[in-house]
Amino acid sequence: MTIENSSQAKVFGGWHKQYTHQSNVLNCAMKFAVYLPPQASKENPVPVIYWLSGLTCSDENFMQKAGAFKVAAELGVAIVAPDTSPRGEGVADDAEGAYDLGLGAGFYLNATQAPWDKHYHMYSYIVDELPALIEQHFPVTPAKSISGHSMGGHGALTIGLKNSEQYRSISAFSPITNPINCPWGQKAFSHYLGNNIEDWKAYDSVELLKHNKATLPILVDQGEDDGFLQEQLKPELLVAAAKASGSDMTLRMQPGYDHSYFFIQSFIEDHLRFHAQFLTA
Amino acid sequence: MTIENSSQAKVFGGWHKQYTHQSNVLNCAMKFAVYLPPQASKENPVPVIYWLSGLTCSDENFMQKAGAFKVAAELGVAIVAPDTSPRGEGVADDAEGAYDLGLGAGFYLNATQAPWDKHYHMYSYIVDELPALIEQHFPVTPAKSISGHSMGGHGALTIGLKNSEQYRSISAFSPITNPINCPWGQKAFSHYLGNNIEDWKAYDSVELLKHNKATLPILVDQGEDDGFLQEQLKPELLVAAAKASGSDMTLRMQPGYDHSYFFIQSFIEDHLRFHAQFLTA
Repeated sequence: MTIENSSQAKVFGGWHKQYTHQSNVLNCAMKFAVYLPPQASKENPVPVIYWLSGLTCSDENFMQKAGAFKVAAELGVAIVAPDTSPRGEGVADDAEGAYDLGLGAGFYLNATQAPWDKHYHMYSYIVDELPALIEQHFPVTPAKSISGHSMGGHGALTIGLKNSEQYRSISAFSPITNPINCPWGQKAFSHYLGNNIEDWKAYDSVELLKHNKATLPILVDQGEDDGFLQEQLKPELLVAAAKASGSDMTLRMQPGYDHSYFFIQSFIEDHLRFHAQFLTA
Repeated sequence: MTIENSSQAKVFGGWHKQYTHQSNVLNCAMKFAVYLPPQASKENPVPVIYWLSGLTCSDENFMQKAGAFKVAAELGVAIVAPDTSPRGEGVADDAEGAYDLGLGAGFYLNATQAPWDKHYHMYSYIVDELPALIEQHFPVTPAKSISGHSMGGHGALTIGLKNSEQYRSISAFSPITNPINCPWGQKAFSHYLGNNIEDWKAYDSVELLKHNKATLPILVDQGEDDGFLQEQLKPELLVAAAKASGSDMTLRMQPGYDHSYFFIQSFIEDHLRFHAQFLTA
């Protein structure tokens, strides 16, 4: 698996770099970004936090807007930010260019329905292909945690819960907690997975958590003035699911904050320190 | 002078807000953004750092990418980010849409040449109209400092040097130090100010600084791997000018850093703390 560097910039003594590569899982060329803290070297590999972004985002939104690098450099953790869907001319998209289906809206699942099933395999990309690529090409250890925002918070929770042996900890900002039960999720899942709701439950954090006690620590932050809170995000259902299974999850409701990167940058330090305590233990 | 709020988001306990207003100086509608730290109130007005952005930027680039709010909140300083040129359908632009002339490239001067002289008065906007507006509508003190990047570094230096009674301190990232002597400056100044180079010197930091001892402290950061360093920025000429007039200026050359916001976010904390020591004294 080869990768090609497309940009690099020094930041807080480390390096932000972007790469392109041919994805076997997604059947298209993909971009990702990595932040390597100053400590990272062949002699001193560092753990990795995978960041999954939300609807409409690429590898760039978190890296440009989250203000995460000062603390990542202090803690000596790398951050990897993939794109949010397969990309390119041959990749299916919503006919009307909707922001919540198709390009930029991969929902971190493996689609089973045409035309989506040809490329939309973000679940396997995040779980298998991308970490293998990162561990092949960069000075990192196998220690991994996973975090994300909104659709990416859904991705971080579902992937972390389903692959708990692979990660040390999970966190999310404003996650879509119960996609089988909200408009964004129902629209995407019906296209990607078909009409059998039983098939949807494998990608639903509330369903996963309520039936299985989580073995990883989980931190969730949610802004109380988030315009998507009641219709799309529903953190109270995640809390109930964690309680039902006796899982270790902390939900922090943050008064006055919305759904934007201004909210993420206000609390990203807490998430990095939360993950670092497990990654560097 | 009235202003209209167009967005607001809580960040690090304070508020990022965007506004539109009709500018009398620029003869068009303008946007600006303000960060108000949590301490700001009518009973406790706070000082202001004005941030001037570079070519192609709007009020948004710094606010989204600089990662400045955590420290601004700690220090209790407001930040105001104006746009970089007049805007709107009636505003002259380069015929070929060049990034370094016209919209997004106001160069913080008062144009004297048609068609630019109808709207391009960013100097008077930054020096007079905008601070009056800010002090009318927000819980701020008259204490001000000024900073900026690239074209905005040129703006911060020239405006600060020419209005030293109005500011407490000046800083810049990667400033265009000697526009009369580099391609970006020569192109813009010839269009905005005509062909008499004597008229250009009033907007040239090197010219201003070499003939007059600066009464304000000045901090400049410059990345050593900045692709514009030698042809456009020329910090060594600013150092020589400061030395010639016995002015107090610190230039820090930063190995490995480029011209991007990744560079700015790496050192913005130093600039905020530099200004705060004079603003809160």
